[in-house]
Amino acid sequence: MAMMKPRTLSGFMELLPAPQMQMERMMEILRKTYSLYGFTPLDTPAIESSEVLLAKGGGETEKQIYRFQKGDSDLALRFDLTVPLAKYVAIHYGELSFPFRRYQIGKVYRGERAQRGRFREFYQADIDIIGDGKLDIMNEAEIPAVIYKTFSTMGLKRFQIRVNNRKILNGFYAMQELTEKAGDIMRTVDKLDKIGAEKVSLLLVEDCGLTEEQAAEILRFISITGSNAEVLEQLEAYRGRNEMFDTGLSELAAVTKYLAAFGVPEENFAVDLTIARGLDYYTGTVYETTMLDHPEIGSICSGGRYDNLAEYYIEKQLPGVGISIGLTRLFYVLGEQGLLNPELPTAPADVLLLPMTDDLSAVIALATRLRESGLRTQIYTEQKKFKAKMTYANNLGIPYVVFLGEDEINAGVVACKDMSTGEQTTLSAEDTVARIKAGLAEREKGAVILG
Amino acid sequence: MAMMKPRTLSGFMELLPAPQMQMERMMEILRKTYSLYGFTPLDTPAIESSEVLLAKGGGETEKQIYRFQKGDSDLALRFDLTVPLAKYVAIHYGELSFPFRRYQIGKVYRGERAQRGRFREFYQADIDIIGDGKLDIMNEAEIPAVIYKTFSTMGLKRFQIRVNNRKILNGFYAMQELTEKAGDIMRTVDKLDKIGAEKVSLLLVEDCGLTEEQAAEILRFISITGSNAEVLEQLEAYRGRNEMFDTGLSELAAVTKYLAAFGVPEENFAVDLTIARGLDYYTGTVYETTMLDHPEIGSICSGGRYDNLAEYYIEKQLPGVGISIGLTRLFYVLGEQGLLNPELPTAPADVLLLPMTDDLSAVIALATRLRESGLRTQIYTEQKKFKAKMTYANNLGIPYVVFLGEDEINAGVVACKDMSTGEQTTLSAEDTVARIKAGLAEREKGAVILG
Repeated sequence: MAMMKPRTLSGFMELLPAPQMQMERMMEILRKTYSLYGFTPLDTPAIESSEVLLAKGGGETEKQIYRFQKGDSDLALRFDLTVPLAKYVAIHYGELSFPFRRYQIGKVYRGERAQRGRFREFYQADIDIIGDGKLDIMNEAEIPAVIYKTFSTMGLKRFQIRVNNRKILNGFYAMQELTEKAGDIMRTVDKLDKIGAEKVSLLLVEDCGLTEEQAAEILRFISITGSNAEVLEQLEAYRGRNEMFDTGLSELAAVTKYLAAFGVPEENFAVDLTIARGLDYYTGTVYETTMLDHPEIGSICSGGRYDNLAEYYIEKQLPGVGISIGLTRLFYVLGEQGLLNPELPTAPADVLLLPMTDDLSAVIALATRLRESGLRTQIYTEQKKFKAKMTYANNLGIPYVVFLGEDEINAGVVACKDMSTGEQTTLSAEDTVARIKAGLAEREKGAVILG
Repeated sequence: MAMMKPRTLSGFMELLPAPQMQMERMMEILRKTYSLYGFTPLDTPAIESSEVLLAKGGGETEKQIYRFQKGDSDLALRFDLTVPLAKYVAIHYGELSFPFRRYQIGKVYRGERAQRGRFREFYQADIDIIGDGKLDIMNEAEIPAVIYKTFSTMGLKRFQIRVNNRKILNGFYAMQELTEKAGDIMRTVDKLDKIGAEKVSLLLVEDCGLTEEQAAEILRFISITGSNAEVLEQLEAYRGRNEMFDTGLSELAAVTKYLAAFGVPEENFAVDLTIARGLDYYTGTVYETTMLDHPEIGSICSGGRYDNLAEYYIEKQLPGVGISIGLTRLFYVLGEQGLLNPELPTAPADVLLLPMTDDLSAVIALATRLRESGLRTQIYTEQKKFKAKMTYANNLGIPYVVFLGEDEINAGVVACKDMSTGEQTTLSAEDTVARIKAGLAEREKGAVILG
């Protein structure tokens, strides 16, 4: 038969079983943490009608979209989870209760230029809170609090959620009578981390047409730093000159206060006036999240407050706030940096049962018992040498191997070997389960991410 | 602004939050049960290169495939999870340990003619066990045992896993010297449930070119019925006339014996000689699963034993056995039949917190405490009338509402209302948590599927 060389497309993540298990742990934490904060899971199609998906139209994104015909239909794969959410809320507006809090963990597609660490199919893990007409400021603090809890539960410590408010920026530019240029200025200032202050200043003058004094004023403003309290205090000096600025400052102060109330340590969130988010979409609080030891990676989790989720689909004002974790990229980066905990079990089973009799009824009954007690159990019945069976358990990292021969069956006991210590016990099934469970609890003590 | 009427494509399931929560419960049971039996989770891309995906070539399926160009690449969406598994095992052959047991729950795509209850995007939930060269017969009993456990855990009772063995069929046809026509005959016999014995007999004569005697002999054979023991006993009468038949019969007897050892009740599995599965792919045990009260739905879970998973990709003999639940269709059917338990909670949260103070620090601290105890908690801070807040909780089915005002804060207590009984308590936070947990445990007692 003619062979076809199998391959997986470049830019598409396909993990071996052990790293896949680590990914599953992260997904499980996401589902659980998002649920604890009262977000309901949603699942929308990966394929949408192109005219619906692209209602907003769209620059860079549009070029990257996977778009194709099927019969008479012009279809496209979703490129984020926000447009499908807008569509969903518009279609089901009358059937939903607001604030509507949903999470969605799903694959999205962007045909980016292939390069290392860039994915064309990747998971996003989003939370959004959508209001009907209004939405309380508390939500803008709760969203990063959920992210703090999520990352902390995963074991990530050295990260910082950076928070700003677009109203402060817009208000500030209004004070400088630069409102019309605010979009251009913010896109330029957004590059500060990448190109430095000097080049930003140059671009502000040359590309945005500012005077050198205006550029200096802007750089002075965005270089306000210090503890969150210090930054807020320095911002108070601008109060009273522009209404939007004042609103933004009050919102930022409230978000900062409530973030502390949510138990987010100051080292994990920072008021940062350089955060603007490139998108015009955001109107209030904005977030970016950086790994403190790997700033070169950029933001691993971004979002913000918007005024009008579904303006292309429905005549309702639907303000919201949301954030998105780029899960596939985060997982890739953690792997590259050696930050995925290799100590946590990644085996497909907790116990491998090796029957030593021809009739399998007894070993099957034992497997059922172990499974009923919650142990992930595999029965190994292939005709192999003993050594090959032990190698199998070792290669998969299965922590316990149980032997069941005539002697054990007659004596009503089970022989069980701890594969890491080599220690072997002969105990009742009940005591064996207890011993294995204690050992597993010990092995489960770490978090999936190191540091 | 010009509005675009939002819509979801027909043939694509998009659930409201409450049914989505029921779907999540089913998925959680799938993940957990599959794991208990030692299957490791895999996740492969939804997009593959067309030449890889279609290496086998392929009749009906090929017409239904979503296939498109992106740049120079000829791409296609996966139409099942088996071809991607074959590709995966072929690529990673040297890095895997065999038997390789994996589960995958993922969306697949088939551009079928749109009709009620038919989906173009749907979840399959697959398990497969792949051997390297050989695979023990025990696995062919364990696969349906996992399915029994999965459906039972979901609450489904009135289902039957129907088991047959292709070797028995092929051996039988060899006895009748009808081997060359066996494929055609089996495809015809496969229609027995739909069109009845008389029409099958007619088709066997007219389309397959059998004599009336041969057709009668075949119908006599496939109408062997009774308890599993009775069917096996009747089959013993054919033993000794064809080697393949004898092997198949011994396998079927072993599978039947071990299925009983796995604790699968006789009412939930039946040896059924009419099951052939249309696919040439299967070579041994085959499975179909019917809902006893809804035979018109057809099989909700099918699969079988195959000899050569990845023959198009690799020069290795990789026998396996697998089964697939058509999850989206099953969920749809259960909903249509009113079999999804409406009593199980589908709310996004267990508790809704209503702060009665301007400062939110106390309610945020309480929320943190409830979440740390495992309660899914939402803080409601929108400026609405009291009645609107209670309606919100009611509409979402949130079972408990907690009020926190100055009095409660000062007294160190919490006022908590059970939304189903109306009963209100004023207790410490700790006792409130205990009360809510007891109430939730009560509400969680049922299964997700009724009957």
